[in-house]
Amino acid sequence: MKISDRMQSMNPSAVREILKASADISFSAGSPSSGTFPAVELATLADEILREEYGVALQYGISEGYGPLRDFTRARMSQKYGVGRDSDDIIITSGGQQGIDLAVRCLTNEGDAIICENPSFVGALNDFRLNSTRLIGITMGENGMDLDKLEETLAREKNVKLIYTIPSFQNPSGITMTLDCRQRLYDIAVKHDIMILEDSPYFELRYSGNDVPSIKSLDKTGHVVFVGSYSKIISPGLRVGYVIGPKELLAKMTVAKQCQDVHTNMFCMMLVNKYFEKYDIDAHIKECCQLYSDKMQRMLQGLEKHLPESVTFTRPEGGLFIWGELPEGYSGTELCKFTIKHSLAIVPGMTFDSDEDAGNRGFRLNFSSSTDEQIDKGTELLGRSIREYLSSK
Amino acid sequence: MKISDRMQSMNPSAVREILKASADISFSAGSPSSGTFPAVELATLADEILREEYGVALQYGISEGYGPLRDFTRARMSQKYGVGRDSDDIIITSGGQQGIDLAVRCLTNEGDAIICENPSFVGALNDFRLNSTRLIGITMGENGMDLDKLEETLAREKNVKLIYTIPSFQNPSGITMTLDCRQRLYDIAVKHDIMILEDSPYFELRYSGNDVPSIKSLDKTGHVVFVGSYSKIISPGLRVGYVIGPKELLAKMTVAKQCQDVHTNMFCMMLVNKYFEKYDIDAHIKECCQLYSDKMQRMLQGLEKHLPESVTFTRPEGGLFIWGELPEGYSGTELCKFTIKHSLAIVPGMTFDSDEDAGNRGFRLNFSSSTDEQIDKGTELLGRSIREYLSSK
Repeated sequence: MKISDRMQSMNPSAVREILKASADISFSAGSPSSGTFPAVELATLADEILREEYGVALQYGISEGYGPLRDFTRARMSQKYGVGRDSDDIIITSGGQQGIDLAVRCLTNEGDAIICENPSFVGALNDFRLNSTRLIGITMGENGMDLDKLEETLAREKNVKLIYTIPSFQNPSGITMTLDCRQRLYDIAVKHDIMILEDSPYFELRYSGNDVPSIKSLDKTGHVVFVGSYSKIISPGLRVGYVIGPKELLAKMTVAKQCQDVHTNMFCMMLVNKYFEKYDIDAHIKECCQLYSDKMQRMLQGLEKHLPESVTFTRPEGGLFIWGELPEGYSGTELCKFTIKHSLAIVPGMTFDSDEDAGNRGFRLNFSSSTDEQIDKGTELLGRSIREYLSSK
Repeated sequence: MKISDRMQSMNPSAVREILKASADISFSAGSPSSGTFPAVELATLADEILREEYGVALQYGISEGYGPLRDFTRARMSQKYGVGRDSDDIIITSGGQQGIDLAVRCLTNEGDAIICENPSFVGALNDFRLNSTRLIGITMGENGMDLDKLEETLAREKNVKLIYTIPSFQNPSGITMTLDCRQRLYDIAVKHDIMILEDSPYFELRYSGNDVPSIKSLDKTGHVVFVGSYSKIISPGLRVGYVIGPKELLAKMTVAKQCQDVHTNMFCMMLVNKYFEKYDIDAHIKECCQLYSDKMQRMLQGLEKHLPESVTFTRPEGGLFIWGELPEGYSGTELCKFTIKHSLAIVPGMTFDSDEDAGNRGFRLNFSSSTDEQIDKGTELLGRSIREYLSSK
């Protein structure tokens, strides 16, 4: 058996294997808290759907997705957030991840370059690798991707087909791109006629500060594809996300989706739609935000208290992640060996680095999946592990 | 915006657009009858899962799929059908379609050739096209793929990476490959060291004759990937299928799946698993077979009665489809223009042809989605349409 070239170097991450080693406290997850899942409401709705509409819920559907959910999502995103114009279409995807893969399959050829923030979401980076594209990472600054570096890069690089960004509460850094930067990024993309893939699974999880309009809402020229998800505000297990972008592109993505999984599971699309019909999603999001805000504040306080001053960390306004950085010359991967001795799991920065061998000195902390006690104890152990690592060298 | 090379020529099929024109009677579906869906049972189970196990059902899971469903499927397929050895693994996929796409992404490079039966399942053919592979169609005989032609082709063609076959109740022909042919096909694949992609969504829907062992059950050398599906025996809307194949390959397919949709929707995997725990799937399949057997017999009788002798059709022992063929010089696509005037939808053979421009004279009929009255009336209208077409030329 001969494995395809594109898959030869794609392996289950070594880090992932380390993380499988069970830890008493884990800041390594990327999951929402199961306490936020509207399970009882969904149970009632699931029963209704399977008794009254099983002929639709259990049957094949069209690749674009369940009509009422497309309509609801389109209307909500347009009215509430200015996302989507007449020249745009929407499809429902099997989570936001599928939106990324479909966009890449439809917009890039093997060997084309994709620009991403560095660090960035590992699921997207791996998808870019799987599609045999070349990754170009642009350092993150306080306000998002360093746009001077982006312009330098675009002046130099040919065949850049896509700029991938998570502008709000970025994974893993927690950083939010300012409106000025979003506008400038958009203008740069238009100037170079390059598509922006705006991945925004966390944008509604804001705990402080003011909403920043999405890049897609600035899009007058059809240069932005917006990938959204119901994973963080309803449930990731249902695998329901969406993509809003130019009609021509979405028609191609629909054909690709047909080849990939025919359509997203019908029952769960109906379940999500019925939840929107019967319940107030904005009230639900507010509750999620309260829970996460408390947890994030608690973790930030723990980090203030326990981390040596030489270690920096971000103070996000939302999302699920805080990013820490060790002093020059230290490695996030090495730090993990110390935390794991204390049965604390964190994710080393190299996981999110566009160049895995670059010796990243960051680490990612998730606060949404831990109890208050775990956050208190875990930040203390993190401080202890860091001191041990720093003094060991 | 520049669409990728691989997607340039991929368009929503013209035929699909024709079929969207509503017809009073449709033999064009590929769907199981919604009358077979165990909706009431699933409603009870869904409620149970969301109340008692929502923390698993609504949360992220691993890309390989829900453990108990993998275990159940592995055990059932091994014990009942001899599919899967110690050197094999299993992953749960988002329908059988995803199993096909993942296998192709992991086993072929752009420009590699894939051998398929001609005609064959359009969803697979389009996926091969999407993956920029070269399709080589081998004519179907009464016992499946013409293996003499296969050997001639393999003597000539280089870079064949995959042989794609639907050995049982093939879509669209309804033909089942005999055991001798399966063994010979397997031996040829081993001799040339080429993987077989055995797609078998219908194999448990047998209405007459004896079970034929799968090609995978003959596999001693790790040359067969088996793609199965719960779409035809439980529900297609849930999008739950599975792949059984060599561990090395499935490890790669798991990494690709992680990039594609992270994992299949957890809730529906649990729902299917719980159905297996609480109900007798074999008894349920028996009921499905009884229903479909009656419908197929009725359609065959209608075709005997109404079709001119110059038109041939297959007499399958199972599955969902019958394949008709017009005399030399006539076209299935042209026939559709006549049936649609009578508000009868059928699918022209070109849809399933590895060479869409070859002028296929076949047409596919589905019997699972129509009522008895529709089958009677539809076969009559088909006969009338054929006569009109034949006499018009």
